[in-house]
Amino acid sequence: MSLSQLLTDSQLGVWLDHWSISSRDSILDTAADWSVTKTVLHGGRQEGVDCILVNNGRLQFSVIPTRGFLVWEAKLGPMRLGWDSPVREVVHPHYVTLTENGGFGWLDGFGELVSRCGLESIGAPCTDSGVLLPLHGRINYLPASRVTVEVVADPTPTIRLRGEVVETRMFGARLRLTAEIETQIGSNEFILRDTIANEGGADREFQYLYHANFGPPILEAGARLVVAAVKVAPRDKRAAERLAEWDQYTGPSQPGYTEEVYYITPQASENGQVDTLLHSADKSRGVSVSYNSRELAYLTLWKNEAPLANGYVTGIEPATSLPNPRPFERQAGRVPKLRPGENYRSAITVRALGTQNEVEEIERRIRTIRQDPPEIQAQPVLG
Amino acid sequence: MSLSQLLTDSQLGVWLDHWSISSRDSILDTAADWSVTKTVLHGGRQEGVDCILVNNGRLQFSVIPTRGFLVWEAKLGPMRLGWDSPVREVVHPHYVTLTENGGFGWLDGFGELVSRCGLESIGAPCTDSGVLLPLHGRINYLPASRVTVEVVADPTPTIRLRGEVVETRMFGARLRLTAEIETQIGSNEFILRDTIANEGGADREFQYLYHANFGPPILEAGARLVVAAVKVAPRDKRAAERLAEWDQYTGPSQPGYTEEVYYITPQASENGQVDTLLHSADKSRGVSVSYNSRELAYLTLWKNEAPLANGYVTGIEPATSLPNPRPFERQAGRVPKLRPGENYRSAITVRALGTQNEVEEIERRIRTIRQDPPEIQAQPVLG
Amino acid sequence: MSLSQLLTDSQLGVWLDHWSISSRDSILDTAADWSVTKTVLHGGRQEGVDCILVNNGRLQFSVIPTRGFLVWEAKLGPMRLGWDSPVREVVHPHYVTLTENGGFGWLDGFGELVSRCGLESIGAPCTDSGVLLPLHGRINYLPASRVTVEVVADPTPTIRLRGEVVETRMFGARLRLTAEIETQIGSNEFILRDTIANEGGADREFQYLYHANFGPPILEAGARLVVAAVKVAPRDKRAAERLAEWDQYTGPSQPGYTEEVYYITPQASENGQVDTLLHSADKSRGVSVSYNSRELAYLTLWKNEAPLANGYVTGIEPATSLPNPRPFERQAGRVPKLRPGENYRSAITVRALGTQNEVEEIERRIRTIRQDPPEIQAQPVLG
Repeated sequence: MSLSQLLTDSQLGVWLDHWSISSRDSILDTAADWSVTKTVLHGGRQEGVDCILVNNGRLQFSVIPTRGFLVWEAKLGPMRLGWDSPVREVVHPHYVTLTENGGFGWLDGFGELVSRCGLESIGAPCTDSGVLLPLHGRINYLPASRVTVEVVADPTPTIRLRGEVVETRMFGARLRLTAEIETQIGSNEFILRDTIANEGGADREFQYLYHANFGPPILEAGARLVVAAVKVAPRDKRAAERLAEWDQYTGPSQPGYTEEVYYITPQASENGQVDTLLHSADKSRGVSVSYNSRELAYLTLWKNEAPLANGYVTGIEPATSLPNPRPFERQAGRVPKLRPGENYRSAITVRALGTQNEVEEIERRIRTIRQDPPEIQAQPVLG
Repeated sequence: MSLSQLLTDSQLGVWLDHWSISSRDSILDTAADWSVTKTVLHGGRQEGVDCILVNNGRLQFSVIPTRGFLVWEAKLGPMRLGWDSPVREVVHPHYVTLTENGGFGWLDGFGELVSRCGLESIGAPCTDSGVLLPLHGRINYLPASRVTVEVVADPTPTIRLRGEVVETRMFGARLRLTAEIETQIGSNEFILRDTIANEGGADREFQYLYHANFGPPILEAGARLVVAAVKVAPRDKRAAERLAEWDQYTGPSQPGYTEEVYYITPQASENGQVDTLLHSADKSRGVSVSYNSRELAYLTLWKNEAPLANGYVTGIEPATSLPNPRPFERQAGRVPKLRPGENYRSAITVRALGTQNEVEEIERRIRTIRQDPPEIQAQPVLG
Repeated sequence: MSLSQLLTDSQLGVWLDHWSISSRDSILDTAADWSVTKTVLHGGRQEGVDCILVNNGRLQFSVIPTRGFLVWEAKLGPMRLGWDSPVREVVHPHYVTLTENGGFGWLDGFGELVSRCGLESIGAPCTDSGVLLPLHGRINYLPASRVTVEVVADPTPTIRLRGEVVETRMFGARLRLTAEIETQIGSNEFILRDTIANEGGADREFQYLYHANFGPPILEAGARLVVAAVKVAPRDKRAAERLAEWDQYTGPSQPGYTEEVYYITPQASENGQVDTLLHSADKSRGVSVSYNSRELAYLTLWKNEAPLANGYVTGIEPATSLPNPRPFERQAGRVPKLRPGENYRSAITVRALGTQNEVEEIERRIRTIRQDPPEIQAQPVLG
């Protein structure tokens, strides 16, 4: 048996404010206690935000159709994936003006586990051809026009959400993101599978970045990032200062701390697979982010070891380019184009690791790909 | 018999989310199958948008109180009036920041059949006295504060919607648009009758423009605009290139196409009436836009023969001035003022023409007003 | 007996769209006909705004959780406290972009009796460290994340509303306003008691100002402000022109009138108490605004004797500083900081005075504090 439920379709006039399904509905032949619940958030800056809660029987996570189908947070038993942003609410796009604060309006609602950045641009705010490109583009603050839930039995009992988010305006781009989020019943991971289609009549540049963000309890003094890095380069002077400890975490800092950003060239497996692992000091907890380097050719590490109250967090960011201003990336040949009707596809897998065994298994796999330390570029990429 | 129903009044605290009335309610003594339905749109960027669907038994059209009482689209039997914008949703004002993208934020939600532009300014974005005036002003993204539906029997069975939209702020203008949209049962037309009142305590400039937009099936290669033009002038160098074919359409173009804008001086009838006609190549389909030149002294033609996927459309735009930056129009003496308590009135009639007979009848009427070709000004108005 | 009702909590997922309680619910042992009603406003730019109506049996007032817990208007019998702004609707923050119109977006929704200004900045728009600070900061357009109503019997039957409003973003401030509004059953006053807490991990500047605004019937030709002023200074050349009549009102003006702003140094009582009184020409009506100068060290008087239709109003504005651009105030040493975890508290009392006796009693109290006329500074503070 299987089920496909349309929750929202702006063209067909479908919209369900509340809906749920669970193991009690006898759709899947499994003993797992799974559920999918669609609800609406209220109060403060999250008034009116759509939210879908998924529980696969082992892993729980929340998806926000109103915010470009982002993943707000996840939980594996007592272990939370996510972080404590000063922003505690799932802020509605209506409360955010992306171009404000020097183009940093995106930060007004930044508190999620996985954001998508794009579609017309990612990275630092900049002016490109006279137009202000705000930080990380618009897709993280655009609502899904069509939302479906699928619960399928074969080949493996699986929950799959699908959201379609359109980034368009007259005389501008016409890009459609079809964002799938899939989890197998009883698994410890979810997969984001995304397609970006150029529905416009002309070639169109695009940029795409996953912003996967983790804080305590995984992130802490002694936590470590493991990746088969061939090369590591600091973004700027600030990152260069801490270059020797690029993959190590020292815990929350004193006020005055400034973020560090590193550009990593990973060694992929033969089929392009890249695994990254963040683990706690004692390796009893971790999370892995995996993707294919043929889809996402660039990897950025964001370390923000700020005081806890300011948002103590690190970000793993596979992308189509580095998150520098678009003109800089275009100059470097890292801004691809889609022809009319052409698609781009990418995926990342986020796996919650609740035991030392799980952490060390992935660590071994990464060490197998490459044992040597990376080449360290001393010179900052910017300036 | 007749009926008047208040749907919204922000001061009285009246708001109906859903309401409808139809021929089954026995209000009008007619065999026509008419209806008026008020609903709320959902999903994507149209979440929460109020919509009124009118069916006069022959012609259907939708009116959007949330968007300054614009007309989203219309249908006469199988013939659609409207166009295929990349923007497929009736975008809520909350998702639009007019001043973004160099003042072109208006385009983020542009997909309608008839927009109203104004009230403080129309036309290209510009800076006037240090303030950024965004493209086409604010009224197309302001919600109606009071909405009524009237169904009247005498003298002719008629459906009339009325919306009041206030454009005001402290230390700024205080202008009230009372927008009426009227259609006779069984007719093939609707009439927009608007009043702009200065409710402030000082003289106040205003500008007003109707942006009536048409795409396929009327617009196509071989389609033509018919108007008793005395003079035609290109807006800019681009329009000057295509000046000889100003009233002809060649069909969707290749990527790289740029819009053409022409300023037309029409010959009005004795009482000021101006008829414009857009017809398909074989004249089997058409639409006319009629108005009074004493109310709307200037006429602009917008041709956007872009690829279909980018928005293939032409706009007929009668207005109080040309859609140039306001300082340019002020300099030319084309920006009127309203004294405190003073009103301005204007109206346009949009008629759907479903047969060659109907098309040719209006064509003949226009040709009667003037047979001679227009004077063609070679020099672009701008630069 | 007493009652505490949670109306909204964004973290707990509590939200009540409609709720009410009244004397009929037998909570208080009083004959007064009191009530508290929570509702949602509709239509125009106030669509979706939360509103709490309080009636203490004598005084009625409305509080807007969606707008930083401001007080929209109040009524004591037939006497209204408030003013007639061109903005008649309680405009939703979604319809306001604070940075628009040169940073004066705040005025798009300005029509209330008491606004709070802050928390990161107050006063005139300016650029500070490259960032545009919009007029009067953000708190007046931020929604409450948590709202409670308390009705308590002891020691005095009292209605108390509490709203928590968070002003935060990633890499920015993390300030929480806890705004209490309290009124005793049968009294003619309400008290705003506010706490601002720095929940961030670093020291943070803040600014805070109450903007209490009054129009007819209290404000009129011959109305007067009474305050134990030690010194009065004009903000600018315009205010300097009218300096001799700084505490007198001449009635609505002709178009072309420009606002006047005066900076007042009041004599406080021994415990820091400052009373200000605005009364009508014949002293039959008035309103007092009282506060403590240890909390709110600066007092500004805003006179806007514009034509009635443009907003005829005066504002009494106790604050942590003068409402000049923040860099100017910082330079003068008037921008305080909060350490992590530190709180700032302030309160104002607004009392409606419906008889000459009440007016004269407060007038006498103020005259007791100081009989001498103030020192008048001729030189404008700015320029």
